[in-house]
Amino acid sequence: MDLNDNDPVLIIGAGLIGASIGCALTTAKKTVYLADANRTHCLVAASRGAGLIDDVDPETVKTVIVAVPPQAIASVVIDALQRYPNAAVTDTGSVKSVIAERVHRASIPTSRYLGSHPMAGSHHAGPLTAASELFVDRTWVITPESDTPYWVIKRIRSLIELTGARIVELDAPTHDRAVAEISHVPQLLSSLTAARLHEIPHTDVTLAGQGLRDMTRIAQSDVELWRQIIKDNTANIRPQLEAFQHDLAALIDELDHDERVVDVLTRGNIGVAALPQRAGKRPDDTVAVRFAIPDEPGALATLFNKITASGINIEDLSIEHDSEHEIGYLSLNVAVETADLLRAAMKELGWATPAHDHTGGQS
Amino acid sequence: MDLNDNDPVLIIGAGLIGASIGCALTTAKKTVYLADANRTHCLVAASRGAGLIDDVDPETVKTVIVAVPPQAIASVVIDALQRYPNAAVTDTGSVKSVIAERVHRASIPTSRYLGSHPMAGSHHAGPLTAASELFVDRTWVITPESDTPYWVIKRIRSLIELTGARIVELDAPTHDRAVAEISHVPQLLSSLTAARLHEIPHTDVTLAGQGLRDMTRIAQSDVELWRQIIKDNTANIRPQLEAFQHDLAALIDELDHDERVVDVLTRGNIGVAALPQRAGKRPDDTVAVRFAIPDEPGALATLFNKITASGINIEDLSIEHDSEHEIGYLSLNVAVETADLLRAAMKELGWATPAHDHTGGQS
Repeated sequence: MDLNDNDPVLIIGAGLIGASIGCALTTAKKTVYLADANRTHCLVAASRGAGLIDDVDPETVKTVIVAVPPQAIASVVIDALQRYPNAAVTDTGSVKSVIAERVHRASIPTSRYLGSHPMAGSHHAGPLTAASELFVDRTWVITPESDTPYWVIKRIRSLIELTGARIVELDAPTHDRAVAEISHVPQLLSSLTAARLHEIPHTDVTLAGQGLRDMTRIAQSDVELWRQIIKDNTANIRPQLEAFQHDLAALIDELDHDERVVDVLTRGNIGVAALPQRAGKRPDDTVAVRFAIPDEPGALATLFNKITASGINIEDLSIEHDSEHEIGYLSLNVAVETADLLRAAMKELGWATPAHDHTGGQS
Repeated sequence: MDLNDNDPVLIIGAGLIGASIGCALTTAKKTVYLADANRTHCLVAASRGAGLIDDVDPETVKTVIVAVPPQAIASVVIDALQRYPNAAVTDTGSVKSVIAERVHRASIPTSRYLGSHPMAGSHHAGPLTAASELFVDRTWVITPESDTPYWVIKRIRSLIELTGARIVELDAPTHDRAVAEISHVPQLLSSLTAARLHEIPHTDVTLAGQGLRDMTRIAQSDVELWRQIIKDNTANIRPQLEAFQHDLAALIDELDHDERVVDVLTRGNIGVAALPQRAGKRPDDTVAVRFAIPDEPGALATLFNKITASGINIEDLSIEHDSEHEIGYLSLNVAVETADLLRAAMKELGWATPAHDHTGGQS
């Protein structure tokens, strides 16, 4: 099998994921062809630099990437194995065992299929916001089976590497259990939490702060996509939801007992600490300095010039928008020992502290 | 009652909240005195500009703000009502009914007490990270009772206004129900979600992404503080946890039914939409452009100068740290139609797309 680097790649499904893979591979000088049942998706993706929409000789295609909705994946993979006899075929679905079972049920040789799962996304579903950088430093799982030929694994790995993703090899059942734990169950718990907000007085909801907003961010997810994902992974999701239900029942039973409440809160602390940590300074060492962004052109440029001159290191930053007035606040996380230096720098720029701005002067 | 603006304010409890209030009021030229059972807290808070630590004539104190841990609030309030006979006394506790009951149980007149709750905070507990801007644009609830004298309400309101917070008036039971819904129950659900991470294989946890990190951020909260908050509000928390338990049980029962899963996901979408929205562009209209921050001094200043010159409007931004390599990524949210303009600007700066950076060049 010739693994010539100029062999074309075919991406079937030109939504956000497919088009973004196309952009990344095109940027890396691969020849990419796009196919999508939705012709508009193809045109938009091509206009974003995701690839070509010409016909391609099926014999020459050495890799097919199937990036269609979950319920369509298996049949599109089976079709691709037949139409592109020399191609390694992968997919981008979020649940791997069910897809592999469906593929292997076909009455054709299927060892050229290798499941994969790029763990990146966005709340945008279409190709319009495709970005070549979507996968950089994200995890991309591949799930080789014992009879997957080495050339198939090598070919898919080499393409994934071009996107900047980190490849993790797992067997499909382990992958599916892990994504139930760290993605599918949290999705349902976030949705259930957000769903309660619909049942309470709206004036109560208006008091909500950043904590609840963070907890329910993923509850904004696409309903139809998640219906399909959950359907394919109920075997893993159910026991984990039941374990959560058990913990919740124990907490409710003993809500008056300090020991139980302390136990839940403490295990919560420990659980968060087990999550992959962001590198650099630990949050404990940094503090947020907030101030209103002056409504003048180039305000951020002025600020960062000043910060550079002051030698202050920014560990993290975010923008908040005032929901009532038309003010934006910039929150800069810096080391505790440089927070006052930053405040002094802001003062030198003539930016008053926000309390003053807000109350319209001192009394 | 003389409401002379130069009358001293006494803050009892110089932790993050008390010291930050002190900084905000001092910045607004009020005379602030600090007291704390922990002498170090007083000294640190004073050094941060939160106020004075001299003795004050009790007769002259016209306002006392009690910012001690929840379980100590009522007794400190009662003590303050006795020691400062001319003062309006407020507190900063997260649960109001229980505190008011305890205060009114005292065998002294207590109408000079007005409960309040500044809805701001940080994962830092001490005065070291006190910041005068902590309350700007945050909600600060006050819970007047029918016999609260007008001068008490007016006095406390005028001080809160100086911090830049938005005052919301609620009766204590409504406040306590609302914070159970939008803060205490979400806290426990986040802790329970995070606690499960301790029970699953660590290699599975390493696959977790931003969604789970967001959902469990508040599970990092201080255990002892939250034990006290939950203890004081179980009457409101319990029925709401039971309602969640009911929804969860129904979902588990019918996890194989598309209608139930779609219903939970859809109500989740609707619930999030009910949350106070950030102003400005809706997230739907913006897209994130990510790139590696070059490891050179003044990189952000260079970038924002370029952005200003290009006339691109930044709607939101965040920094991500690579947990393995020592790379930081900047994610800039811009209007969909200006995303390519931003990418072009970055290219003009000579900043390669991250996929290239990461894979060490094209093949």
